[in-house]
Amino acid sequence: MYPETVILEEQGLRDGLQSETTLLPTAKKVELIHRLMEAGLKRIQVGSFVNPKLVPQMADTATVFAAVQQRPDVSLNALVLNTKGVERAIEAGFTHIAASISASDTHSRKNANKSLQEAMNEFENMVRTAKAAGMCVRGGLQCAFGCRYEGKIPVQRVIDLCKRHLDLGIDEIALADSTGMGNPRQMEDLMGEIVAMAGNIPVMLHLHDTEGKGLANLIAAMRVGVRHFDTAFGGLGGCPFIKGATGNIATEDTVYMLEEMGVRTGIDIAAIVNIAREMETILGKKLPGKIKNVLSTEK
Amino acid sequence: MYPETVILEEQGLRDGLQSETTLLPTAKKVELIHRLMEAGLKRIQVGSFVNPKLVPQMADTATVFAAVQQRPDVSLNALVLNTKGVERAIEAGFTHIAASISASDTHSRKNANKSLQEAMNEFENMVRTAKAAGMCVRGGLQCAFGCRYEGKIPVQRVIDLCKRHLDLGIDEIALADSTGMGNPRQMEDLMGEIVAMAGNIPVMLHLHDTEGKGLANLIAAMRVGVRHFDTAFGGLGGCPFIKGATGNIATEDTVYMLEEMGVRTGIDIAAIVNIAREMETILGKKLPGKIKNVLSTEK
Repeated sequence: MYPETVILEEQGLRDGLQSETTLLPTAKKVELIHRLMEAGLKRIQVGSFVNPKLVPQMADTATVFAAVQQRPDVSLNALVLNTKGVERAIEAGFTHIAASISASDTHSRKNANKSLQEAMNEFENMVRTAKAAGMCVRGGLQCAFGCRYEGKIPVQRVIDLCKRHLDLGIDEIALADSTGMGNPRQMEDLMGEIVAMAGNIPVMLHLHDTEGKGLANLIAAMRVGVRHFDTAFGGLGGCPFIKGATGNIATEDTVYMLEEMGVRTGIDIAAIVNIAREMETILGKKLPGKIKNVLSTEK
Repeated sequence: MYPETVILEEQGLRDGLQSETTLLPTAKKVELIHRLMEAGLKRIQVGSFVNPKLVPQMADTATVFAAVQQRPDVSLNALVLNTKGVERAIEAGFTHIAASISASDTHSRKNANKSLQEAMNEFENMVRTAKAAGMCVRGGLQCAFGCRYEGKIPVQRVIDLCKRHLDLGIDEIALADSTGMGNPRQMEDLMGEIVAMAGNIPVMLHLHDTEGKGLANLIAAMRVGVRHFDTAFGGLGGCPFIKGATGNIATEDTVYMLEEMGVRTGIDIAAIVNIAREMETILGKKLPGKIKNVLSTEK
């Protein structure tokens, strides 16, 4: 019923940090990426190519990437929201990008300054540009399970948008519960359909724990065949353009639960707990991940 | 696959408050119980009969109970840990008690000052005393899914103890993940067996969110037939005799998730959110429940 292994993609450097006002030095980001690779992460989103005035924390993504000592068994990617971002990613030397649009028109206008239709047109251009450069493209949908502005997103719209994404020749498809509004039943219903539709294309799920359902949703999606999940150390994260958005599911909590269930992640939990605790010191606040608190009391 | 309805038992007044050093006035507790009944809770644990020197917050349980305007459709119970507690509950007029022992010998010694064997003997005496007084007895096991001192609890021990409990003629059986160490796979494996073994006896599950798995565990247990869950407003709670123990799953988060999934609880979420927010003011701290934060941003 449960798989033997799952693959986690670390989002702490991008989704985790993007809303934080304490700017991490480039060297610290590079160090964290090295430590994450050492800890067993095989996929890491290292930053994004978005407007540096709106998201200053991500302004040094190209410099970070250039300084990382890459490993052949680890795939590093950057998030992009428009064709200019794709071009910047290509220039920086990335061979793997995550390009997504929002399933919610309102969120799309706030996050990408485009209507849903405009965003879809732009997405086609992004994929074309990236594929022409030989990139591996993770395509996807934000707010696939609900939007704080629009409420529920019609299931058929999500399926149609995923189908259009797949038809464009993307290499991987990711659905994001950006608001944490998704529930386990929705995960089972929708993700099962997406997995079936995607065929050999890997299906990824990006979960937030805003309403406390993050791990319940992960379990539900795992049951219907999802094998790739985004997580962030410490449970950091949240979109700057979503009301009340809070953290991604915490890498260390996810690893701990899965390993206890006999699902292998290949990730050294102690190393992630150390990073999460260090981030609490750097950012000067408690992070939402839980297992780090329990383990600390046992010291 | 999911049931049409589940029954939640509110634990905020007992498990929720027992470790809090801010003593709630008796009148406030009574008011909260009335509000919980009004909000649709059909089962409420209103307090406990334990050592008032060790757990001062519970010293007024008899007075609280006497002041409550009872309703025929709501069952109020008190927790007891020994025969003296049963006698105090009888004297106070309770007709429903929750009597449990720990599945962990070490936790039993710390929480009840008894070895596991001594606790089992005492439990038999408690059930005999309560049944002789015509009480409805909820029997159960604490730390059924793991212990901070002893680690994993052998599954066979839990099953054997449950069987002995059932043989004594208890009316309901409750398993508690007091430490939050349980995982969804364990819930599916163990709770399925307990449900089968219990037959017509209702099986209850008491979950803590210490490691962030609370709602994932609830979903897993619901899938194998559990229909009764303990929750606490705000996600308050934690045993004073368990290292690093944190809150119960939050009533309002649980209600919100279940209702979104089409599983009816009959509980007015706004009323519970109001109680949770008021408790944050009274106790002067942020409580772990999450949906209250999201709903507040939408005001």
